[in-house]
Amino acid sequence: MSFWKGLFGAAETVSAKELTRTAKASHRQEAVAVKGESILFSLDPDLDLYELEELCDAVGWSRRPIHKVKKALHHSFLVVSMWQQRGNYRRLIGFARATSDHAFNATIWDVVVHPDFQGKGLGKVLMEKVIRELRAQDISNITLFADQGVVSFYERLGFTPDPEGIKGMFWYPR
Amino acid sequence: MSFWKGLFGAAETVSAKELTRTAKASHRQEAVAVKGESILFSLDPDLDLYELEELCDAVGWSRRPIHKVKKALHHSFLVVSMWQQRGNYRRLIGFARATSDHAFNATIWDVVVHPDFQGKGLGKVLMEKVIRELRAQDISNITLFADQGVVSFYERLGFTPDPEGIKGMFWYPR
Repeated sequence: MSFWKGLFGAAETVSAKELTRTAKASHRQEAVAVKGESILFSLDPDLDLYELEELCDAVGWSRRPIHKVKKALHHSFLVVSMWQQRGNYRRLIGFARATSDHAFNATIWDVVVHPDFQGKGLGKVLMEKVIRELRAQDISNITLFADQGVVSFYERLGFTPDPEGIKGMFWYPR
Repeated sequence: MSFWKGLFGAAETVSAKELTRTAKASHRQEAVAVKGESILFSLDPDLDLYELEELCDAVGWSRRPIHKVKKALHHSFLVVSMWQQRGNYRRLIGFARATSDHAFNATIWDVVVHPDFQGKGLGKVLMEKVIRELRAQDISNITLFADQGVVSFYERLGFTPDPEGIKGMFWYPR
């Protein structure tokens, strides 16, 4: 599992005033406190897919076949889930994943934060986690496709739209 | 190797007047005639990396460490190489690859045609091959990042820039 090797060894380069690292629960988990809330990050791609579907339902995404979601997670380079932790109770409140060639490029997909937890800076903390993990894996070209409404959100995180005139393009059947 | 399963079973949906399929050399190879030239496509990711470097040199790309290129090819979902075939002699004249989650999304990278073979419609034939293979794998969302100068080339192939205002974005270290 060389993929995970050293994932948590990377230097912190992000600025996150509200982020205070409190523990490293395991090789794949990281707990942070965000505005008094105990938030857990996991890199385990073996999520409860129905819990993930519930999260995606909550933001109004179209449902996708569970078996395809499972395949997509299995073949993602990075899967980050974000959990609210209260005692022994954990609730899935955020998610993001990335495809990659494991060498040069990564593309981030399916970034979601539960509506109940939006507006608290958690999307930023989640994305900073994603960027940190990809950088720790020596990925130099981190890309994504942003809906119009979230372009400025990603800009604040260091993403540039259409850099040097490069255009994101999608193929449609004719 | 479920990845390759059925790669050549897909229905032809592309229109390519100049493309006449003449043979299916093997599970991973396909020969076509393009304007009298015998062109071979291969899906084998185990390329001669120095030959690939020579091709990339020819179009003026920055050199990349061979061991990272090898890793990137190994972790690409699709690798398509295009060869000029003359008797027993084969020359690498084109290349493209795609990353993917094997389920929903693919992103095409490193599309290149040797300058000696540009302007003959081979870039189109190469990209149609890439699209066909991705569609045969049931990938519904085929994406890429296009330099300004090739946006119209990709538009002619069915790609749309910034569909519904979606922006391609790249992250840069701060």
